Amino acid sequence: MIDVAIIGGGPAALSAGLNCRQRNASVCIFGRSIDSSLLYAAEEVDNYLGMPNMTGEDMTNAFFKHAMKNGVEFKECRVSQIIPMGEYFLINAENEFHEAKAIILCTGINKSHTITGERDLLGKGVSYCATCDGMLYRGKKVVVVAENPEGEEEANFLADVCESVTYIPKYKEVSHLKENIIVKTGKVKAVLEADGKVSGIQLDEEVIPCDGAFFAKNSTPPDSLVVGLSIEGNAIVVNRKMETNIPMVYAAGDCTGVPYQIAKAVGEGLIAALSAVAEVKK
Amino acid sequence: MIDVAIIGGGPAALSAGLNCRQRNASVCIFGRSIDSSLLYAAEEVDNYLGMPNMTGEDMTNAFFKHAMKNGVEFKECRVSQIIPMGEYFLINAENEFHEAKAIILCTGINKSHTITGERDLLGKGVSYCATCDGMLYRGKKVVVVAENPEGEEEANFLADVCESVTYIPKYKEVSHLKENIIVKTGKVKAVLEADGKVSGIQLDEEVIPCDGAFFAKNSTPPDSLVVGLSIEGNAIVVNRKMETNIPMVYAAGDCTGVPYQIAKAVGEGLIAALSAVAEVKK
Repeated sequence: MIDVAIIGGGPAALSAGLNCRQRNASVCIFGRSIDSSLLYAAEEVDNYLGMPNMTGEDMTNAFFKHAMKNGVEFKECRVSQIIPMGEYFLINAENEFHEAKAIILCTGINKSHTITGERDLLGKGVSYCATCDGMLYRGKKVVVVAENPEGEEEANFLADVCESVTYIPKYKEVSHLKENIIVKTGKVKAVLEADGKVSGIQLDEEVIPCDGAFFAKNSTPPDSLVVGLSIEGNAIVVNRKMETNIPMVYAAGDCTGVPYQIAKAVGEGLIAALSAVAEVKK
Repeated sequence: MIDVAIIGGGPAALSAGLNCRQRNASVCIFGRSIDSSLLYAAEEVDNYLGMPNMTGEDMTNAFFKHAMKNGVEFKECRVSQIIPMGEYFLINAENEFHEAKAIILCTGINKSHTITGERDLLGKGVSYCATCDGMLYRGKKVVVVAENPEGEEEANFLADVCESVTYIPKYKEVSHLKENIIVKTGKVKAVLEADGKVSGIQLDEEVIPCDGAFFAKNSTPPDSLVVGLSIEGNAIVVNRKMETNIPMVYAAGDCTGVPYQIAKAVGEGLIAALSAVAEVKK
C-alpha cells in the first residue's frame, strides 16, 4: 500500500508528488502522459516566478525531471474509479487495482459537460465505467454515449453482457464495434428517469428506452471518480488545507477552480501534499 | 497613483508584483532589502517545482531578476501605516506618502509577540508609529518599548513633543537617545488600562504611568498596519481569492499562515495579484 495516490499528471500533481517525497512518503502519480497537460501546449509562460520566458514543453520537462529525481513514481494510465475502503482507498487504473492511504485529485479543468438528469442519476443507472458497473446490467438494455474511441471498448464489453447496447458516438469514424451494437447519431438531450432510476435517453426527438446510461468522456468528472465529492460550479470544493469534503481526499490545481495558472497549481500541490502526509503519518 | 502597492519583499511579494505587471497594472513593492527574506538565508531549497537544489540566495536572486525584468518597482523602506481614504489608500513609507488603489500584504511570518492589553488598546493609547501618532501625546507621558535601535528615532521625536518619554530597550547598546529620555530595563508584562485608555506600563513589579505606549518592533503586526484587519492566531484571515476582510486589501505568503513554503507564497502572490487587478480595472 502506498501512502499517497495522485490522480492527474500536470504541475499540481508533480508538485504534490515532489513534496510527498520531500516528507518521506511513498507516492504514485496515476496520470495521462505528460505531453497531454495544458501547460505542455503553451507557447510561452513568463509568470511562474524564477523561470522566465519558457516554452510550456521546456517547463513541463523541467517539472517532470525535478519530480522524478526525487523518486516520484508515475504510472501512465486512466483512473476510472476510486473506492473508499474505510482505512484506505482502492484505485481502479484500467482494471489494475492499487491501494493508497490518501488521495490527491489533480484532474485539471473539469471540461465535462453534463446533460439534464446525468448528475442526479449517477449511481442510479448513470455510470462512467463499464468494467466497474457493467455486470449490474446483465440482460438489460444500455446506451453508451462516447466522446472518444475508448467508448468502443466499453460498448464491446457491455455487448457481451447486456440484452442490447446502443452506441452514440460524439466523434467521427467509429471503427471497432461488435456487430450486435446499434449505432445512432444526434444530440443527446437528457437522461430520462422513472421511479428514481434511468428509464431512457432523449436523442433529438427520439426516446431510447434503457436501464443503464454509460458515458465515456474525455475528462472524467471528479465527483464520478469519488462518489459524494462536493462540487461547486465545476470546481471541487476545498478549504485552505486543500481538504475536500471527504476525509483523506485532497485536491489541487485547476480542478479546484480559477485562476488556471501554474503558480496556483504548484502552490496547491505543495499544500495538499503536506496536508495528506501529515494525516497519513498520524 | 499606482494600481497596486505590495508590502514586503519576499517570494509572495515578487510573484504578486510579476503578475500585476503581466496584467498591465502599475505596481510598487515597498519592502525591506531582499537579503532580509527568510528564503535568502536558506542553505538549500529543493521543493519548489522546476528549480531543483538551489541555495536560498540564488533562488532569491532569480526571483528578483524575473520580477524586475517585468518592470516591477521596488522601494526599499519600512511601511508604518496604511490609511484607507475611501477610493484609495495612503501608504506611509518613512514619512513619504504614496497612493495606491489596492494593497497586497506580503509581510511574512508575524513574529511579533503581543503582551497583555496591547492589542485591545491599539488606537486607545497603543501605537506602532511615533511620527504618525506622536502629536496626539503633546504634553503627555509616553513609554517607548523598542526591539531594535529604530526605536531611538521614535523616542527622540517624541521627546520634543511629550512631557516625558521612558525608553525600554529589548536590545543591547542604546546609543543615540536625547538627554531628557529616561531609560529603564526589565520585562514588559502588560499595557495597563483605565477608562478604556492606556494608563501605564507594567515593567516587572513597577508601574510606569503613561498616556501613550509606543512599540518599535522587528516586524509590524499586519493589523496595526491596516486597522481593522481580521487576524486568527497570528495569520491574516483570507479566502481562496486572497481577499482579507477589508475591501481592496489582499494578503499572500507566510502572513496568511502555514505552511511557510515558497510554492505556497508564489501561488498566493499570483492569486492576490489577479484578484487585485481584476477589482482595480473594474
